Amino acid sequence: MRLNDTIVALATPSGAGAIAVIRVSGPEAIKIVAPIFKAKSNKNIQDQPSHTLHLGNIVDGARILDEVLISIFHGPKSYTGEHTIEISCHGSSYIQQEIILLLIKKGCRAAEAGEFTLRAFLNGKMDLSQAEAVADLISSENQASHQLAMQQMRGGFSDEIQKLRQELLDFASLIELELDFAEEDVEFANRDEFMRLVATIQQVLKKLIDSFAVGNVIKNGIPVAIIGEPNVGKSTLLNALLNEERAIVSEIPGTTRDSIEDEISIGGVGFRFIDTAGIRETQDVIEGLGIKRTFEKIAQAQVVIFLLDAEMFKVQGSKFKVEIENIQNKFPQKPLLIVANKTDQLSEVEISDLKSQILDLIAISAKENIGVEELKNKLLEFVNLGELRNNNTIVTNSRHYNSLLKALEEINHVQEGLNNNLSGDLLAIDIRQALYHFGEITGEVTNDELLGNIFANFCIGK
Amino acid sequence: MRLNDTIVALATPSGAGAIAVIRVSGPEAIKIVAPIFKAKSNKNIQDQPSHTLHLGNIVDGARILDEVLISIFHGPKSYTGEHTIEISCHGSSYIQQEIILLLIKKGCRAAEAGEFTLRAFLNGKMDLSQAEAVADLISSENQASHQLAMQQMRGGFSDEIQKLRQELLDFASLIELELDFAEEDVEFANRDEFMRLVATIQQVLKKLIDSFAVGNVIKNGIPVAIIGEPNVGKSTLLNALLNEERAIVSEIPGTTRDSIEDEISIGGVGFRFIDTAGIRETQDVIEGLGIKRTFEKIAQAQVVIFLLDAEMFKVQGSKFKVEIENIQNKFPQKPLLIVANKTDQLSEVEISDLKSQILDLIAISAKENIGVEELKNKLLEFVNLGELRNNNTIVTNSRHYNSLLKALEEINHVQEGLNNNLSGDLLAIDIRQALYHFGEITGEVTNDELLGNIFANFCIGK
Repeated sequence: MRLNDTIVALATPSGAGAIAVIRVSGPEAIKIVAPIFKAKSNKNIQDQPSHTLHLGNIVDGARILDEVLISIFHGPKSYTGEHTIEISCHGSSYIQQEIILLLIKKGCRAAEAGEFTLRAFLNGKMDLSQAEAVADLISSENQASHQLAMQQMRGGFSDEIQKLRQELLDFASLIELELDFAEEDVEFANRDEFMRLVATIQQVLKKLIDSFAVGNVIKNGIPVAIIGEPNVGKSTLLNALLNEERAIVSEIPGTTRDSIEDEISIGGVGFRFIDTAGIRETQDVIEGLGIKRTFEKIAQAQVVIFLLDAEMFKVQGSKFKVEIENIQNKFPQKPLLIVANKTDQLSEVEISDLKSQILDLIAISAKENIGVEELKNKLLEFVNLGELRNNNTIVTNSRHYNSLLKALEEINHVQEGLNNNLSGDLLAIDIRQALYHFGEITGEVTNDELLGNIFANFCIGK
Repeated sequence: MRLNDTIVALATPSGAGAIAVIRVSGPEAIKIVAPIFKAKSNKNIQDQPSHTLHLGNIVDGARILDEVLISIFHGPKSYTGEHTIEISCHGSSYIQQEIILLLIKKGCRAAEAGEFTLRAFLNGKMDLSQAEAVADLISSENQASHQLAMQQMRGGFSDEIQKLRQELLDFASLIELELDFAEEDVEFANRDEFMRLVATIQQVLKKLIDSFAVGNVIKNGIPVAIIGEPNVGKSTLLNALLNEERAIVSEIPGTTRDSIEDEISIGGVGFRFIDTAGIRETQDVIEGLGIKRTFEKIAQAQVVIFLLDAEMFKVQGSKFKVEIENIQNKFPQKPLLIVANKTDQLSEVEISDLKSQILDLIAISAKENIGVEELKNKLLEFVNLGELRNNNTIVTNSRHYNSLLKALEEINHVQEGLNNNLSGDLLAIDIRQALYHFGEITGEVTNDELLGNIFANFCIGK
């Protein structure tokens, strides 16, 4: 963890654009940029106040690299807490590259992934869970994941953890004080009060741990398996779901050819639609493999949509009923939405007949955009958005989740110890362990490897 | 050309990055942003000085969209000349989109391509040729094209044109003054001096017009056709040319399957390598089509590399000689470099023998990186870089080129008129025409259609 050098990186996405921003941070940031920046005003940026903007040229000797705007931030009043210069240059890849190379020649080091935010953490500008939220915020693609990341970045989660940690710490101090006066057999820490605190902490921890089920799916998108045969209208349905939303669709790389995943934002929540083949019972080996894969996808999904062709149902209704039963038998707990598409081709009577044959059937026409809204509402019913709507703290990070689980385990030990009138010195050990796991979340307790793992997932320039 | 509204656009490349910059410009820029920006300092940005930076939140009612840094520029001290706010937000596509939508809701209009630079032009912050240079600068991918764009953006070319225009204008005024005193038969404009001026203008115009041959290839890359059979090592050669340069390689879209273009920067100049098939004489119709296409590529190229396999030459030397002769006969003026690859497989004696058979042969091994430097130097010899090295004005824009040609035509008319003692009123007409074409370049003379065409090629946000 070197903090004594000055780092540089492109902070905006790579590629050509109107402008690009190059960020320089470290003790020498202003000193390194000053000689290569000729302000239009002829002012020396070393004499300029923090939070000011200056127009001028980046020069390499006689050569003018670009006309730029620079922003000056004096540490600690900056993102990293260090002196920082942001250079807003023309968005040519060539210019970006030349300016960064010049800065490196003048003494900067190319920043590693997440190093600006790492420095912000190390300089006490934010705690570890807030730093992690920065990466979540950048990758947020819908309202729900954005809200969770914002909340965490603004310290909502940290405050809650810090509060528990502080109360626990106060008790730990009292108990440790008792140890100093062991011969006098005094009790500074009121055991009843402590029991109540431990119960409260258990309650809060359990709530946070439970929230991870929601947080995790909101962060990563709710997996929905769509089971349907090739011509049933899966892509038309996905387009219909997409159309009414300003949503970001992305093909998630690494998915296999036979199960493309589309992420669609519905009601501000991301749903990952996993396309699967039908699951007709068969003796055929290859098709059997297909079924196995479909079952795997269903197992991974939080909700399953069985999409059938309403017209086909008229002809092959019994076949579909068998397939639906198969799924229900194999996954009795899995929410299953049975959706009949292409109902625009059916008469009212035929639709009624269809609905009478299959309980809770959702009749839609993806093409004509009929029933799509009903389907969306059904999907949203499967997500527990109450916590989100009430602005409750929701844990989204599996590292935090694991620390919370461990903290709860230690708190349970403390409770047990209290119930068994365990001596103060032994109680103190369990309390210290619990405090350790709280500290892991916010970063009071950390190590280089952990930090390396966390910040390696950041983009360069952040 | 609406200038009375306030426009907004993303100024950084799209996609996720550490940060993104959203630009707002127009009379209401500060007024629109003020109510949705809550500064950490609680200051109202409407009271803040120009060129200052402020940390705070972008809020939509109670909802916090992001923690951002905003830059304030008071017109005319801004890029566009108008009040401008730049919002530096977290680089999530979702956040970018939400902030832009909020700004539109609050009264901004989504900017069209190049509209910020168009406003800079309309508000007199730069002339038209400088505005055009901004787009060139953003798309510059090597030192030479960057240098030309920088020079143009900084007004080098405009100054030269303006100077000629002013001198011509002075004479035009004198001649027009004569017309007012027509009855008195006075001559305010000294005809000999005017002749000298016209001759100077002709000279400068011719120099500028000639420079376009260099400027155009530097801007667009020098087209080099590589003729060679499939296994001759074309891609190894391209990689070898590329390896020693920090260069930007790009597959230019729209090129056909059989002629991929690679742009490689050599000595700071862009070369576009056009891969073509061999041109063996044949009766076969399909191969005949291939030959036709190869000839087309050669015709478009400024330099041709005939790449042959040195080992193959030992066996099929006469065949290659025929092919080379074919090309030389068909394109007697086209510079042709004959390059023997894979010479690492030959003995010294064999290489000497090869060189004795083909004049000016360049013996290389792309794989072993032998002779590649020599080839690079040969390629650079075909580019007239003298003008560039001497920092002379080089015309790169075909619009300017066309206006210069027309201006020269009119100046020639003026000269003819002077030689024939044409009357002042007739001279004045040709002078006005020449002035018109000068004005087209810098934008004194313009119209909506022309501006529309120019700025439509910009990226949005610039």
